[in-house]
Amino acid sequence: MTKPQLPSSLSAFRALVAEMPRRDEAAAQAARAREAVLTKPAGALGRLEPIAEWAAAWQGRHPPAIERIRVVVFAANHGVAAQGVSAYPAAVTAQMVANFEAGGAAINALSGAVGAALKVVPLHLEAPTGDITVEPAMSEAACVAALGEGMAAVDAETDLLCLGEMGIGNTTAAAALCAALFGGDGTHWAGPGTGVDVAGLARKRAAIDSALAVHADAGGGPMEALRRLGGRELAAIAGAVAAARYARIPVLLDGFVCAAGAAALHALDDGALDHCLAAHRSAEPGHGHLLQRLGMTPLLELGMRLGEASGAALAAGIVRAALRTHGAMATFAEAGVSERDD
Amino acid sequence: MTKPQLPSSLSAFRALVAEMPRRDEAAAQAARAREAVLTKPAGALGRLEPIAEWAAAWQGRHPPAIERIRVVVFAANHGVAAQGVSAYPAAVTAQMVANFEAGGAAINALSGAVGAALKVVPLHLEAPTGDITVEPAMSEAACVAALGEGMAAVDAETDLLCLGEMGIGNTTAAAALCAALFGGDGTHWAGPGTGVDVAGLARKRAAIDSALAVHADAGGGPMEALRRLGGRELAAIAGAVAAARYARIPVLLDGFVCAAGAAALHALDDGALDHCLAAHRSAEPGHGHLLQRLGMTPLLELGMRLGEASGAALAAGIVRAALRTHGAMATFAEAGVSERDD
Repeated sequence: MTKPQLPSSLSAFRALVAEMPRRDEAAAQAARAREAVLTKPAGALGRLEPIAEWAAAWQGRHPPAIERIRVVVFAANHGVAAQGVSAYPAAVTAQMVANFEAGGAAINALSGAVGAALKVVPLHLEAPTGDITVEPAMSEAACVAALGEGMAAVDAETDLLCLGEMGIGNTTAAAALCAALFGGDGTHWAGPGTGVDVAGLARKRAAIDSALAVHADAGGGPMEALRRLGGRELAAIAGAVAAARYARIPVLLDGFVCAAGAAALHALDDGALDHCLAAHRSAEPGHGHLLQRLGMTPLLELGMRLGEASGAALAAGIVRAALRTHGAMATFAEAGVSERDD
Repeated sequence: MTKPQLPSSLSAFRALVAEMPRRDEAAAQAARAREAVLTKPAGALGRLEPIAEWAAAWQGRHPPAIERIRVVVFAANHGVAAQGVSAYPAAVTAQMVANFEAGGAAINALSGAVGAALKVVPLHLEAPTGDITVEPAMSEAACVAALGEGMAAVDAETDLLCLGEMGIGNTTAAAALCAALFGGDGTHWAGPGTGVDVAGLARKRAAIDSALAVHADAGGGPMEALRRLGGRELAAIAGAVAAARYARIPVLLDGFVCAAGAAALHALDDGALDHCLAAHRSAEPGHGHLLQRLGMTPLLELGMRLGEASGAALAAGIVRAALRTHGAMATFAEAGVSERDD
């Protein structure tokens, strides 16, 4: 599959999504056949078992590889932060990027724990997106650039890609985007995010409802919703998800904001995220609603709500373990183990 | 804390359990204090956060260490297998032990994925325990020996111990033991195990109810229930859990059978498992009932039902990641990251 060109417009990106490669059914079949003869009762490894088939189908090879795990964290700033929707000041986005680069954040430790390479991609932190309660978050050019930055961040030499984000105010953008894509209002989609108080949550809900009203008649479909209500890191995640599909890289999506960026692709094509697994269910209530809409059952449910790809990096250990069992276990015949009595 | 002597009787083991060391509150306090100043919103790592305090409290040091993860799998045979309670012949226990030793089983791959050392402890496979539907599983001498073999299997040079088991017929023994400890009958506690069919499940329930009737009037408390209804690997797990407590090693319990062995200690002293976490919730329905009785919320829920410490080894990656974040993350002050606005 040839590497797609970076898109020159939202419509070019839509065309690129429409042409994404499909599952490799031969690799999937080879994975199913091997899984069935490994020395364990059928199904006894539960959700670990279909992971081998999923990875084989999307890597397009059997056995699937799992040596090169990469984590990419996109960071951006949001004009809507001025509405008092976060417990932290907007300056924290750049401070946390510096913390990622210095190795001091949770994602550094979690990437290290699973042996993953971490890439941090700050997206014009000096230029927050427009305040969605009064204007679009991005011009078409800015949105297309962010999609392209997401695509460009995907290294083809990757067996599993963990995607995440950082951006003060971005659960507000994610909630507004989800409401535009799937219906519902600020009360349905907003949650405490980094831990906003009751008054802050009320401001957040109001900001989302204002944004929905301002952009209600815009039309233009999911990409236009992403441009108007999302943010650079949400667009970059959408771009990275698409580029990973072309590069035959399975993806772990982190929490609410990451899934919201990816959801724009799902709204274009309901098979667009078939090469992605939900790493975990965040404590942010909107994430649960969104996973249900996306038809995804997360691997982990540990009450995390940090972002930074933290849940994805943690779940990468589960995927690696699943693929190690698939690759390394003996078959009943090899091990001389008796099969079932019945 | 001095290493306890191997017990010479069930009553000596009970005394040993009664004297187990308690939490190190100073280490726990140090962990809480550090966790509160790491560069993340308080609580944003969800269930990862209290793991640092738990490990510090039970290792008795801060920061807690997580370099040396060990997996111990106890294997034994069960006279009750003759009642047709498993989908596999009893010979599979020894065949799987050979598979563990040759490196071909799921637990080999899962231990390898998390960098853990694996020890397999076959417990007199040539001598199945008594058929619990007609006689006690073990003499007192045999039960005491198994407790001691479990204790002896714990290496003091361990930061985290993952316990598991293998034994054809042992979900029947575990279910009978749970019923004796907590009430309920074969229908409540029995499940498909390795994947028994409808007729097999009926035989399993009947075997459990027969065993409960045969041993109903025996008395003697949890250790006597373990001797009469359990099995060597269940007793060894109880012994290993107690020895780990003395050696200041936190423990991950695997699935239903492992938790049932540990539950005998809980029935003696409801704080006896405070140094243990439930690694996962097995697909075996009795495990969910048992975790509820033990007041444990598992880390993972992936529909696994293999045993072999497979869920514990998988969850060891979660514990390691939690302790890496605790140890390696920068504080707000170190990183120059702003704290909350409010």
